[in-house]
Amino acid sequence: MSGPSYVAVDWGTSSFRLWLMGAGGEVFGERRSDEGMTGAARTGFAPVLQSHLNALGAAASLPVVICGMAGARQGWIETGYVDTPAHLSEILKGAVVVSGQPRDIRILPGIAQRDAAAPDVMRGEETLLLGALGLDAPGEALVCMPGTHSKWVRLRGGTVERFATFMTGELFSVVARDTILSHAVAGAEEAVDADAFRLAVAEAFAVPALSANLLFRVRSRQLLFGGSAQAARETISGTLIGAELAAGLAERERATPVTLIASGRLQRLYQIALEGLSIPLNVMDAEEAVRRGLAGAAAAIWNN
Amino acid sequence: MSGPSYVAVDWGTSSFRLWLMGAGGEVFGERRSDEGMTGAARTGFAPVLQSHLNALGAAASLPVVICGMAGARQGWIETGYVDTPAHLSEILKGAVVVSGQPRDIRILPGIAQRDAAAPDVMRGEETLLLGALGLDAPGEALVCMPGTHSKWVRLRGGTVERFATFMTGELFSVVARDTILSHAVAGAEEAVDADAFRLAVAEAFAVPALSANLLFRVRSRQLLFGGSAQAARETISGTLIGAELAAGLAERERATPVTLIASGRLQRLYQIALEGLSIPLNVMDAEEAVRRGLAGAAAAIWNN
Repeated sequence: MSGPSYVAVDWGTSSFRLWLMGAGGEVFGERRSDEGMTGAARTGFAPVLQSHLNALGAAASLPVVICGMAGARQGWIETGYVDTPAHLSEILKGAVVVSGQPRDIRILPGIAQRDAAAPDVMRGEETLLLGALGLDAPGEALVCMPGTHSKWVRLRGGTVERFATFMTGELFSVVARDTILSHAVAGAEEAVDADAFRLAVAEAFAVPALSANLLFRVRSRQLLFGGSAQAARETISGTLIGAELAAGLAERERATPVTLIASGRLQRLYQIALEGLSIPLNVMDAEEAVRRGLAGAAAAIWNN
Repeated sequence: MSGPSYVAVDWGTSSFRLWLMGAGGEVFGERRSDEGMTGAARTGFAPVLQSHLNALGAAASLPVVICGMAGARQGWIETGYVDTPAHLSEILKGAVVVSGQPRDIRILPGIAQRDAAAPDVMRGEETLLLGALGLDAPGEALVCMPGTHSKWVRLRGGTVERFATFMTGELFSVVARDTILSHAVAGAEEAVDADAFRLAVAEAFAVPALSANLLFRVRSRQLLFGGSAQAARETISGTLIGAELAAGLAERERATPVTLIASGRLQRLYQIALEGLSIPLNVMDAEEAVRRGLAGAAAAIWNN
């Protein structure tokens, strides 16, 4: 086993993750921080990257492949988008070199759906897809990638045909933090109230138009009947996720399993929600998927 | 025409409105401020009320009737709720005297729907209903009262049978102010982009489950196709209102007109939205309705 041969970076809006990778996919070192695009746009992208490489003692010759918001207009350099229908191999071809750097640094492009009736963009999730499905996954796939901005993607034979972004995670944050419901969830502990969550998913899934009412009921229920902060939080979460599933699963061909790419608490919640609706599932870890996607990109860029 | 005979106050969460009223409904003076329940809970309710009465030179003998959040648990005194099915006359009977005050001050109760499957509460809107419909409106009515927390109410013969609160207005505020969409709406002027609004209403009304996706499209559309801040703001507004209408109108019996009680910009938006869906409408001004409701309460309390 030789040493590190490249560096993989997932550079999101508010998070930075870096891995020192071996040619065979081994992880020699890892760094995480909250120096996402928003912070790095102020302090400079190159110094942030270099500080993490220094901390790991990375050789000056190691090349770097990056996915995510570092390629956005407000990022390090704008890498543009590959348009749908987009074969995942086009992502690899669209990598852009960051010029004027002492080492070889490439940033992957995103995917755009330039449909005036349903415009959409992704940046970072294309690399998760690459890692989770590989370049030439045969047949149909319906992929759910939960998060601040959840993505639902329909692929056929490695080509992204259509996708839709739902602001579910961001809505949860502002509803729980900045509305009248903040009182209802105050002091909620980490434990998941799976019953409250499952019920809220089922209600919003059945009648998504009621979502804004189901949210207010969280407050009314506490006023009239009491109830825990956990139950309140999970009801907010389940309501927003249930409505998302109603739209996302409408894209599903009968019996097609959903590929869920997620980690941690979100993986757990979406798994409970989808299993509660009897949807067959393939679950993949999001962090492993992005690392694998970046490894695939590195192989395509530097091993040819 | 004699002078003022009582004082009417609409005391909301974040607003205070007071009218010096004549026995025949004449308005002798008016005060408005942002000393709502939240502020007055800190500074004291009695001093806020007295300062506005002093500013109008109101006689010390004038009695005061109040509706709204001043009767909430965090308000001046808790006035409780009348439970559904609630005839509007029960609101008048439920007025609570604020003790220890130099004048006769009464606060009206709210209405509670103690249904564990659909708990809900209102406080202030019961007085709007009273003013808009009167005590003994015959037949069915479906009332929409847009706002921070929009209410849809089904009445029969002056009795509130069921109602539902939608967090539409509050969702609009946090989405436009605290999410990624804040960039898209930055600098929007007051003018209403009725086309963007109408289209967004129609899309969310047709597939409410897509709401969180329709919201994200506001950003994608600006990134890929450009577009004004006004159009972005109206699309957010139309999406949230369209989903609310899909649920609210599901309660409507065929051909029953909707009674819309609203003022200003909200009245205009809901009118465009409902007319766009070819729903027959009765429109009433919200401020006039609350004043009339308080006048009805004053007559019932002091003229018997």
